[in-house]
Amino acid sequence: MPTTQAIDRGVIEQIVRQVVLQQYAGEASGSEPTDEPKLMVSISARHCHLTDEQVETLFGPGHTLTPMKSLYQDGFFAAEETVMVVGPRRRMLPNVRVLGPTRSYGQVELAFTDAISLGIDVPVRASGKIEGTPGCVLVGPKGVVELEEGVIRAERHVHINFKDLGRFNLESGGRAKLRITSGTCSVVLEDLLVRADATSKLEVHIDTDEGNACHLDKATKVELYAQESPCSCHEQ
Amino acid sequence: MPTTQAIDRGVIEQIVRQVVLQQYAGEASGSEPTDEPKLMVSISARHCHLTDEQVETLFGPGHTLTPMKSLYQDGFFAAEETVMVVGPRRRMLPNVRVLGPTRSYGQVELAFTDAISLGIDVPVRASGKIEGTPGCVLVGPKGVVELEEGVIRAERHVHINFKDLGRFNLESGGRAKLRITSGTCSVVLEDLLVRADATSKLEVHIDTDEGNACHLDKATKVELYAQESPCSCHEQ
Repeated sequence: MPTTQAIDRGVIEQIVRQVVLQQYAGEASGSEPTDEPKLMVSISARHCHLTDEQVETLFGPGHTLTPMKSLYQDGFFAAEETVMVVGPRRRMLPNVRVLGPTRSYGQVELAFTDAISLGIDVPVRASGKIEGTPGCVLVGPKGVVELEEGVIRAERHVHINFKDLGRFNLESGGRAKLRITSGTCSVVLEDLLVRADATSKLEVHIDTDEGNACHLDKATKVELYAQESPCSCHEQ
Repeated sequence: MPTTQAIDRGVIEQIVRQVVLQQYAGEASGSEPTDEPKLMVSISARHCHLTDEQVETLFGPGHTLTPMKSLYQDGFFAAEETVMVVGPRRRMLPNVRVLGPTRSYGQVELAFTDAISLGIDVPVRASGKIEGTPGCVLVGPKGVVELEEGVIRAERHVHINFKDLGRFNLESGGRAKLRITSGTCSVVLEDLLVRADATSKLEVHIDTDEGNACHLDKATKVELYAQESPCSCHEQ
């Protein structure tokens, strides 16, 4: 396996960077804050999901993922394990984090910046919608897996509990938008897919391109709106 | 100089990626298009500006920059020359494009993703406002330059001719926002610095994080607004 001292961002960049700020109760920015719900906005750095079988191929017979860091949604974790993702023409990303638990299919989630560096023309898809997407090669310490498909840019989305949908005037499967106030890098991210269920905590997932575009680390306010609602982007 | 087969995005990623779309005359999306002005939106990949003296230090006595590709603004160009940018702890970006013509100060413009990979906590600044910013080391084929300061994330901005300010209700030195409609990655980029003069062509400059966040290559509509104006982000 080649070694490199170049841009090892899989190690350098944190797996998850997060901002949690008070979501204001009303639509106007001057409204009084309330106790709940807090709005967590998380940047997911590039990562992959594996099947049990793929874990054994890559890391050895009988191997199971070792949790390293719990994620905000209960039961999910960043694993100790990383893989090398190899694209066309042998370009590669050396240390891509595996997230757990395992799934019934393998999937690699990249930002566009990552995909450009790999030379993959990556489609924007909701997690799990991988039919017809590009494949890649995964290299682990004990073996290699060739994914026929599964390389995507994950569609920006919000995890939300059914009980919170009404508060934001959202519908499961619908769209939302997120305004992030941040120095001179404020943005409105539209088209967030609303993924509602009975157990999720309120959390927006964006990728490193989106999080870096708005310098999320320095954000001072985050606001979640239904897609068709006026937002505060003209209220200075 | 070390060689690398890893993530050589300075070569892989184009220097400039651009979308030029009709700017609608009115504020409403249903307005009739007019012939002018076209709105050019350009992604600037990471690059640097050098002084004449720095060019000679890096590339040899008497050396001057060789234009490779003209940029949209008259008189500016991407040069054949590239430098290695070395940050703290010897992390580096191997091929960072030099833009011309030369200036009275050296400056390195990075996206946050680039800065994170270098390990530099980079501030967001208007071009030229480099007082107190981090430095770096530039390595060329014939020599090395140590920049005491000058590493920035360039503040997103719009070049505009004085004669077009009124059309968009903008003021020189003020702020604008840009809505980019693009599949399920639409965004509103706020806080664009308005840089007006008598010679510029209408052009928004964003970086690779911002351009990749909205998948600019697939954009179907771009709209420029004064910062305090309602935009079309709630008109579906």
